[in-house]
Amino acid sequence: MADSVQKVTDAEVAEYKKQIPTWIILEPDGEKRLEYVYKFKDFATALAFTNKVGELAEAEGHHPAILTEWGSVGVAWWTHTIGGLQHLDFIMAARTDEAYKAFQES
Amino acid sequence: MADSVQKVTDAEVAEYKKQIPTWIILEPDGEKRLEYVYKFKDFATALAFTNKVGELAEAEGHHPAILTEWGSVGVAWWTHTIGGLQHLDFIMAARTDEAYKAFQES
Repeated sequence: MADSVQKVTDAEVAEYKKQIPTWIILEPDGEKRLEYVYKFKDFATALAFTNKVGELAEAEGHHPAILTEWGSVGVAWWTHTIGGLQHLDFIMAARTDEAYKAFQES
Repeated sequence: MADSVQKVTDAEVAEYKKQIPTWIILEPDGEKRLEYVYKFKDFATALAFTNKVGELAEAEGHHPAILTEWGSVGVAWWTHTIGGLQHLDFIMAARTDEAYKAFQES
């Protein structure tokens, strides 16, 4: 069930959200999204991280919105086909956090 | 004057805008921005174009916001330090259009 395209319940949101405490849930177009903005020292570093997130997305075949600016990368995960969040979105958010940690240490 | 950091006048906006007819002027945070959304066949191609825009930005030392999604790249040019648009923003928008044309032909 975790990998089926099924909207998470409120109880699941509460549980899964514990794994990604810094992310916030927004609902910009009536669809819940997980969003977080990572900070970087300049534009080139931000763009390099954008590409890392792109690799994660392509590997899973699930794609976020990525807002690249000087010194920051905003990432939003959600599933448009179900109009909200599935378990995979939380997994991808956690993987993005892991990628950021590895990126900072590299 | 064209390259000094000076806000464009309404007359200049009207003139410069003719060179980038597809772009729209938005004012999301009280600061006018030039915005356009380019379409692509998939995520990887969109991300490749994001990197092209990044090259343009780094070459000029002027950086946009780039929203990368599956099949699209939204680009916004403006100058935060003056709270709006300078001539360079219009030039960068035109260069982005040229980069898109070259990218499509490559």
